[in-house]
Amino acid sequence: MRIPLERSGTVPLYTQIERFLLCAITSGNLPVRTRLPSARQLAADLGLSRMTVETAYAGLEAEGLVTREIGRGTFVLPPASPAMPQGDSPESWPQWQRDLTVSCASWRDAAGAPSAGDDAIRFDTGTGDARRFPVEELRRTMLSVLRRDGRSALEYGDPRGYAPLRKTMAQVLSAQGLQASENDVLITSGSQQGIALVAQLLLRPGDTVVVERPTYGAVLGLFRAIGLRIVDVPVDRHGMQVELLEAILQRSNPRLIYTIPNFQNPTGSCMSTQRRKELVLLAERYDVPVLEDDFVGDLRYDGRALPPLKALDRSSNVIYVSTFSKMLMPGLRAGLVLADGPVLEILSELKRLTDLATSNMIQRALDAYVSVGRYEAHLRRSRRVYAKRRDAMARAVERSLPAGTTFDMPSGGLFLWIRLPEGHSATAILARARARGVRIAPGGEFFADGEEGDRFIRLNFAAFTPEEIDHGVSEMGKAIGHLR
Amino acid sequence: MRIPLERSGTVPLYTQIERFLLCAITSGNLPVRTRLPSARQLAADLGLSRMTVETAYAGLEAEGLVTREIGRGTFVLPPASPAMPQGDSPESWPQWQRDLTVSCASWRDAAGAPSAGDDAIRFDTGTGDARRFPVEELRRTMLSVLRRDGRSALEYGDPRGYAPLRKTMAQVLSAQGLQASENDVLITSGSQQGIALVAQLLLRPGDTVVVERPTYGAVLGLFRAIGLRIVDVPVDRHGMQVELLEAILQRSNPRLIYTIPNFQNPTGSCMSTQRRKELVLLAERYDVPVLEDDFVGDLRYDGRALPPLKALDRSSNVIYVSTFSKMLMPGLRAGLVLADGPVLEILSELKRLTDLATSNMIQRALDAYVSVGRYEAHLRRSRRVYAKRRDAMARAVERSLPAGTTFDMPSGGLFLWIRLPEGHSATAILARARARGVRIAPGGEFFADGEEGDRFIRLNFAAFTPEEIDHGVSEMGKAIGHLR
Repeated sequence: MRIPLERSGTVPLYTQIERFLLCAITSGNLPVRTRLPSARQLAADLGLSRMTVETAYAGLEAEGLVTREIGRGTFVLPPASPAMPQGDSPESWPQWQRDLTVSCASWRDAAGAPSAGDDAIRFDTGTGDARRFPVEELRRTMLSVLRRDGRSALEYGDPRGYAPLRKTMAQVLSAQGLQASENDVLITSGSQQGIALVAQLLLRPGDTVVVERPTYGAVLGLFRAIGLRIVDVPVDRHGMQVELLEAILQRSNPRLIYTIPNFQNPTGSCMSTQRRKELVLLAERYDVPVLEDDFVGDLRYDGRALPPLKALDRSSNVIYVSTFSKMLMPGLRAGLVLADGPVLEILSELKRLTDLATSNMIQRALDAYVSVGRYEAHLRRSRRVYAKRRDAMARAVERSLPAGTTFDMPSGGLFLWIRLPEGHSATAILARARARGVRIAPGGEFFADGEEGDRFIRLNFAAFTPEEIDHGVSEMGKAIGHLR
Repeated sequence: MRIPLERSGTVPLYTQIERFLLCAITSGNLPVRTRLPSARQLAADLGLSRMTVETAYAGLEAEGLVTREIGRGTFVLPPASPAMPQGDSPESWPQWQRDLTVSCASWRDAAGAPSAGDDAIRFDTGTGDARRFPVEELRRTMLSVLRRDGRSALEYGDPRGYAPLRKTMAQVLSAQGLQASENDVLITSGSQQGIALVAQLLLRPGDTVVVERPTYGAVLGLFRAIGLRIVDVPVDRHGMQVELLEAILQRSNPRLIYTIPNFQNPTGSCMSTQRRKELVLLAERYDVPVLEDDFVGDLRYDGRALPPLKALDRSSNVIYVSTFSKMLMPGLRAGLVLADGPVLEILSELKRLTDLATSNMIQRALDAYVSVGRYEAHLRRSRRVYAKRRDAMARAVERSLPAGTTFDMPSGGLFLWIRLPEGHSATAILARARARGVRIAPGGEFFADGEEGDRFIRLNFAAFTPEEIDHGVSEMGKAIGHLR
């Protein structure tokens, strides 16, 4: 035990020890029944005489905070009074902390963090159905990986990621039209980390970045946190309106274009092949890197698979990120970056400087799981189930929400993006729906600025059964009805 | 399977499919014995007639790349020739990628990344002895956590970290003189991520940061990657020479002071209590945050425990980071940040924007492991073993390295920092020692600039048995002898 002592001060050392332990006990940091170190041990730790510590312990005993049991030790007693209140007033913060709250105001709370779980129907969630995660299979896989690899699974691994997993990923990607080798792949802690690394590497405060309008809120928050100038290009039912992009490239000299071509978040739209080609061409012509976020690209329910931008990119301008989090196991945090040219190696080095490596054990478990084809099978089953849920959500919205509510039917992904009729406000509905046990993601989160977003709501259809969807949307309808 | 197709081009669709698959097979992305999708399936995926796909498959069969087995499917055959070479010449990279290699030159390779494991004696490693990691106990803990928590362990958790783990950590920290509650703790992917988050939040390109001279190489690399101005303060056997700091604070207006007060990396020195107090006082007077890296603070072998800076900090200027990686399980990636005031909450939000959260399952396993006292027991055993190894390393250096080699005996931690006699070069020794099966960390990695570092070598004594240490240092001695 380390206790800060003022050896040259006027307060006796035993009093300092007594006060320190008193605070630790009353704050609950030394829980009831904790055994304190023996007086001999603590005296040795602190370089004091044993008598000094004994005196401190005797004081604590006198205050009724500990009990000394002969031959067994000194134990913390249950509190007689509630824990001390902790002073935490803004006046006591140093100036740099006060400045921080001001300088960070632009991005804090921008992207609404999902709050801790409650029993609500969480239409605001960003993943698939947790009840369908293959918990038991993953448990078995992890067990067998630890049995097979033992301590190597617990050491730092290659900062680029576990080599067999990178090879497996290259094979998975090649089934999506991407010709990749393991050396083109970097494993990250989810796609969010891939995006953050690319942003940290390529962008400096004041730089301009192009995003879709609307787009993924946590990326907007990240770009704001870096201090970027955000320029957005509207999305229609065929994805980003790439025909508006060239003027922006000429005018604003952006350093990065961020896009979600498949089942866009939040709109669910898919970029047309023509626009994909045009985007890749523009990137080449204007020498701008494109960050392609394919977060649920393999969750297609109908229609034809479209080539990733990366598959169309002949000139190393596209950086592709993807993840297993949405479908499989968000809590494991595993994603990947695919790129060619020096940028991938530099990203790997930055990754190492940022967190050394992604958990080696988890990478090995993921590799074992994916290699034996379980991921593909899980994906196939999920597609079937989620397609039905999408249809159920569409019907429920038509049935229970006000006339004039519109949406485009997404051909895949997780979200239905609905537009409310004139005069409705998503923010107003949010609180009302929450009171009725339904959480929604209000559209404003997905817009870089303006109030346009308040006419929209993003609803996750994948995480709920048709019955839950019917019930949740019906409650939303009632919440809206009460507002009129 | 997604295949990028040029539908309006002059190349027939079946040729495009055939070429795509040819590349996938010859590059190894479609491994031998892979079953291709049925022609019917692929045709549906691509929105083509089945005949088009059949034609492509027939072409591949004619080329000897696949075999069609009636009633079973189409399978990839072993390659007749080696994989195609991949063009990867600098001329083919876009300009922004070429610029990147120039702008990143200052920090790439700065901090020598440990290369993939080989059979060498790795005195350059930065962790404890992997053979002592409690693999079997962790395996059982993880298993029981997955059994107990099931799918909740696989969902995203609280971005600040799993609440019970934060509470456990607060209790562990209170045994080190830190009065903390769970709300003062943020769980990160190792302390490296804690440091990276603090840097990303508080520092902008061109800002000045104060570090120790020498200091941890991966943090120097990180600070260079951000584009910081690095000012260093020399370390002696009592840690950072804090008496030199005030002049720097007046002159350079730094935005952060980074320090490793306990068993400093690489020198092994401990900052004296007097300097600790002075540093905290200066931080308050000059309104500068201090980042305290306590990466092995609990690995003390002798002498008196000293209070963390954070325990002396009455004005919320110190941000404390620590980790379990060095001692327990680097591959799990778990660390923590302890701070008070708004900075902790803002760091938590930045953490969420950076990678959403640290693996929930790993946090639960770690909590279960630490809570039952296993971590403390592991620590006690490791201290006993490592103290003996430190002594063995000191004796071996005195016995086998040239006269005039000096070092200060560290009272804890992982490293012995040796200074070579006049005329010796660590870089020169590096290659020679490597040829003899010994890896060392040359001193230059730990200095922000200058060649001063080349007189030093950092040796890890904790990861090897006394016999391995004797052998390794003796081989180092021979390597140095050959250089004379």
